[in-house]
Amino acid sequence: MKDFVSTKDISRVELEELFAIAKDIKKNGCEFKEALKGFIVATLFYEPSTRTRLSFESAVLRLGGSLISTENAKENASAKKGESLEDTIKIIEGYADMIILRHNENDSSLRASKVSKVPIINAGAGGGEHPTQALLDVFTMQEKKNIDGIKIAIMGDLKYGRTVHSLLNLLSLYKNIVVYGFAVKSLELPKNYKDILISKGITYIECHEFDEIPNNVDFIYQTRVQEERLEEKEKHLSKFILNKDNFSRFSDSTYILHPLPRVDEISTDLDGDKRALYFTQAHNGVYIRQALMYKIKKDFYENNI
Amino acid sequence: MKDFVSTKDISRVELEELFAIAKDIKKNGCEFKEALKGFIVATLFYEPSTRTRLSFESAVLRLGGSLISTENAKENASAKKGESLEDTIKIIEGYADMIILRHNENDSSLRASKVSKVPIINAGAGGGEHPTQALLDVFTMQEKKNIDGIKIAIMGDLKYGRTVHSLLNLLSLYKNIVVYGFAVKSLELPKNYKDILISKGITYIECHEFDEIPNNVDFIYQTRVQEERLEEKEKHLSKFILNKDNFSRFSDSTYILHPLPRVDEISTDLDGDKRALYFTQAHNGVYIRQALMYKIKKDFYENNI
Amino acid sequence: MKDFVSTKDISRVELEELFAIAKDIKKNGCEFKEALKGFIVATLFYEPSTRTRLSFESAVLRLGGSLISTENAKENASAKKGESLEDTIKIIEGYADMIILRHNENDSSLRASKVSKVPIINAGAGGGEHPTQALLDVFTMQEKKNIDGIKIAIMGDLKYGRTVHSLLNLLSLYKNIVVYGFAVKSLELPKNYKDILISKGITYIECHEFDEIPNNVDFIYQTRVQEERLEEKEKHLSKFILNKDNFSRFSDSTYILHPLPRVDEISTDLDGDKRALYFTQAHNGVYIRQALMYKIKKDFYENNI
Repeated sequence: MKDFVSTKDISRVELEELFAIAKDIKKNGCEFKEALKGFIVATLFYEPSTRTRLSFESAVLRLGGSLISTENAKENASAKKGESLEDTIKIIEGYADMIILRHNENDSSLRASKVSKVPIINAGAGGGEHPTQALLDVFTMQEKKNIDGIKIAIMGDLKYGRTVHSLLNLLSLYKNIVVYGFAVKSLELPKNYKDILISKGITYIECHEFDEIPNNVDFIYQTRVQEERLEEKEKHLSKFILNKDNFSRFSDSTYILHPLPRVDEISTDLDGDKRALYFTQAHNGVYIRQALMYKIKKDFYENNI
Repeated sequence: MKDFVSTKDISRVELEELFAIAKDIKKNGCEFKEALKGFIVATLFYEPSTRTRLSFESAVLRLGGSLISTENAKENASAKKGESLEDTIKIIEGYADMIILRHNENDSSLRASKVSKVPIINAGAGGGEHPTQALLDVFTMQEKKNIDGIKIAIMGDLKYGRTVHSLLNLLSLYKNIVVYGFAVKSLELPKNYKDILISKGITYIECHEFDEIPNNVDFIYQTRVQEERLEEKEKHLSKFILNKDNFSRFSDSTYILHPLPRVDEISTDLDGDKRALYFTQAHNGVYIRQALMYKIKKDFYENNI
Repeated sequence: MKDFVSTKDISRVELEELFAIAKDIKKNGCEFKEALKGFIVATLFYEPSTRTRLSFESAVLRLGGSLISTENAKENASAKKGESLEDTIKIIEGYADMIILRHNENDSSLRASKVSKVPIINAGAGGGEHPTQALLDVFTMQEKKNIDGIKIAIMGDLKYGRTVHSLLNLLSLYKNIVVYGFAVKSLELPKNYKDILISKGITYIECHEFDEIPNNVDFIYQTRVQEERLEEKEKHLSKFILNKDNFSRFSDSTYILHPLPRVDEISTDLDGDKRALYFTQAHNGVYIRQALMYKIKKDFYENNI
């Protein structure tokens, strides 16, 4: 493994290997504190994303690596003068041993990986993938349950929400997954995604009311809806807010996930509930990113895989 | 001590303990170079403040710690999408062992400290407190004189200047302090502050002319006046500029302080004067911040205080 | 050597000493990995320049140093409140052991070096010098050829291109240099620069057609032209693009240089050519900056030169 560009590029074996490393790091972090010693990682962000950037940077530091960083390459850098992404990468590869790339174009990480001598990790690409978010989502789920055979409800913005799409890609590596999709008409999962899910053996059930989601789903994955993406006739529809009251009908082992940031689509009265895993997800993000960089460094620099 | 949110939370004993540590660090810095080894500190700045941020970051590095940093969280981060400060803190506490917070709301650090598992240090909160500035001010003063019984003149913006307010809070821990306040009418010290000072035993004397400040004050604390804060009828009043000429009447042990940045309210012809301490203050800022983080780490992580 | 402010301040002996160190670092980087241990370097950028900043920061990290950094001091810092550059430097010198300064005024680094107790390195000063760019240009050239006696063509913007001016300053330290200058009328090398070159023994030949550049020049140094700097009557002149076709007439040892970023003035069909050195230049930038900081630290902090 040299690059991590898409959830489509990872096999179930590799995924489980990654989770095993992340589990080990979460338990015995100290043993990994020199894993990236003498290693320089560049966080090259064309769009600001403080959380994702700081999560990667924390991961690098916990592994003993060093950082060079730019928060807003689009505004600040040679990009403004008209430099191509490929040229920028061919320069930065001379400064760093690994590049974490956040960019506004869907194919940015793929293009970068094609010209780069050093590994590229996709930290979010336009409306496309945000694959390490999906890794931390599934890592957090598998801490609670075996993923094979789970039932999961996904809610909110299923059309534009890239975290949802990356998550579904990863879940398709597992068996007998049932997905309940609950969204307003204009934010439903696009048909091509549904077709892919079906072709991969995932059962996809469209819901038009919250009540259609069974009480015994294993996970509810709530997401943020951007008002400006709703069609005019839907503006009157109030956004669905998950709260203590409407969540009370679910089982003791129905866990709540959210990629964050949250606005108000999950009420804070659920924050203290043991089944609310969204902050755990954020914290797990550091471990899974540590695991990913650890594995890539080993594969690429030590074993030449 | 877990958090440092306000100058009101510190006792004289704690203050003197801090100063003793800072003095030791200033003299024997090398002995502290691994004090924060393996420790990650987040500088989370919602408002840019290059000086304060770099001062804290230098302090972290001199103690052997690592940094994750954001210069302008307000523009860049999830804040823009509507995330609450509390949510942000509950995420960053998973990335870092201590959070240095600069925020535009007065109660931000207090709110952060209530939800955070890791220590919060207030690096400036809106129009409220900037407590580490007050620490470095008083630390610099006590290097020259015993604070009990001093006479100090404060000048410039006594109404909005938060460094002045934080400084007065700290001085109220000492005995027999006399404060001369010199400002134009619209920038006088607010009545509620005066009442507090009196209740704490500080003598406060209002001055309307520079000449009313006695020649033998121990310190003159000059501050910057923002033109837009003057009332229309005062615009004609030239800002009072401290210079070699009007300072010549003061004693050999009258020291000049300024929180910086300075525009022109202290003439550069005073920079070479041994009694001009403003750059010393800035340099002392690093030592006092090292001391503060050192103490908090010890209290919270090692002694569970 | 305390500061590095201008290419005019360096002698040929010092330049060759620097190149020898850079060569050693390029070959045996590991031996230098603790050269700046315990050392804090501030990258103080008043104008954003991601490439230059990250190059310096990578250099600091490879030498084992630590960083405090600001991407956009002009917008963020006390500068906005009216603080002078001199005041800022006198504060930052208390936070860091060396300052890398990028600023929009030509004499900024010189002014900084006059007040600073710690070394100042000029990382680009307005329309003035960008001296470390010239160092990496000449370092890359001398890896291929002895510089004495070379013929070099410079193209593009010879009027405003500060990299060209700094490069010519450095080349004037060598013997029997012939420079072919090719640019549209309004971007020709200014007369005062030509006079200086002649006074230093450089032969300067002005070209008005690309064909006037001899096939056997040793180097072609292409630069970016900013459209807005062309006079109205020249807008119809298409910018000269170096490509595989028009480059084919040159010798096997005619090398192509470019300070980057490139827009389209060198066609990507040349990127695979062994004579295209522009990415090598960028990578060499890290080694030469390591060498510079290494030498300054030794001279100033260890040998008090």
